[in-house]
Amino acid sequence: MARRSMRNQIVEAALEQFHTHGYNAAGVKTITDAAGVPKGSFYNHFDSKEALAVEALRHYREGRRDDLTGGDAEPLARLRAHFEGFRDDVVRLDYTRGCLIGNFGAEIADHSEVIRECVRESFQHWAETIAATIEEAQRAGAVRADLDPGTAARFLLNAWEGTLIRARADRSEEAFDAFFAIAFGPLLTAED
Amino acid sequence: MARRSMRNQIVEAALEQFHTHGYNAAGVKTITDAAGVPKGSFYNHFDSKEALAVEALRHYREGRRDDLTGGDAEPLARLRAHFEGFRDDVVRLDYTRGCLIGNFGAEIADHSEVIRECVRESFQHWAETIAATIEEAQRAGAVRADLDPGTAARFLLNAWEGTLIRARADRSEEAFDAFFAIAFGPLLTAED
Repeated sequence: MARRSMRNQIVEAALEQFHTHGYNAAGVKTITDAAGVPKGSFYNHFDSKEALAVEALRHYREGRRDDLTGGDAEPLARLRAHFEGFRDDVVRLDYTRGCLIGNFGAEIADHSEVIRECVRESFQHWAETIAATIEEAQRAGAVRADLDPGTAARFLLNAWEGTLIRARADRSEEAFDAFFAIAFGPLLTAED
Repeated sequence: MARRSMRNQIVEAALEQFHTHGYNAAGVKTITDAAGVPKGSFYNHFDSKEALAVEALRHYREGRRDDLTGGDAEPLARLRAHFEGFRDDVVRLDYTRGCLIGNFGAEIADHSEVIRECVRESFQHWAETIAATIEEAQRAGAVRADLDPGTAARFLLNAWEGTLIRARADRSEEAFDAFFAIAFGPLLTAED
């Protein structure tokens, strides 16, 4: 039990450190210090910082809001609220951090096959959930029928990831405003 | 003259190292080694690695293809060719590196005001050039008239930056295909 709990403490501290500082800037010592465990205990739990990063990313993915499926709201409203909730989190953190999946994708996917695979899988799963919501919204007549849901979902998620980077660079809502104006305007919305 | 040239060698090596490995993974020693200059000479030319990163980013920005303005092609065709050329560069490098502006934005903009300002400025300039091209294409009747060129340009550039991250994570053309299918289909294109 104690062993399991020390492992969890390390994963949670790693997620926080990787998200705040990036993969390379967050050293093992910084992570074990933040977790309040001795540095020597790290390798009892993880083979490498890379293996820890994969677990931290999985933990991040699981902890993210699961608000796309189910609920009473209309599918297009759910999709919009999904991104608005994410935007609000970033604004609350003064336009920092963004999305750990995208950050790892930009910083480290070129250099670690296991992290790249976890980033790929995380995007794929997310895009599939978005695609299902778009398809549902099409059946309800709220999203234009000429869009392929899979292609539109991929595009939308990629647009979102770029939007997060731009919002952080600008420290302003402008990138978010452009995202919502275009995505939930001309891009997705069916003409009345 | 020799001094100036050593400075240039360092900037060029830094650009290559930052683009390949990221900001934090590329140390000053790695950069001066790659430039073929003594490490000790670094601080004769730059106050900090941060100051060097700003210069490397400016150098990157200036070296990028300037194919959006002028030329004989129609504005919408120029815009498409602009992104296709960038895509081809990334595919040629086996889906690595992506865009240095976006990479710095994701990795380091939260932690360095001078780098964040340079990233912000680089995106802004790029988005303005795209906006001017979209406006030109609207006047030619090729892009739907209901789009605000500035908002559409910001959205498009952000979508592009996210597309680069996804393409690197997937090591496949799928993200690029979604970008071109949506951007140069339902998003921008005027109905006949």
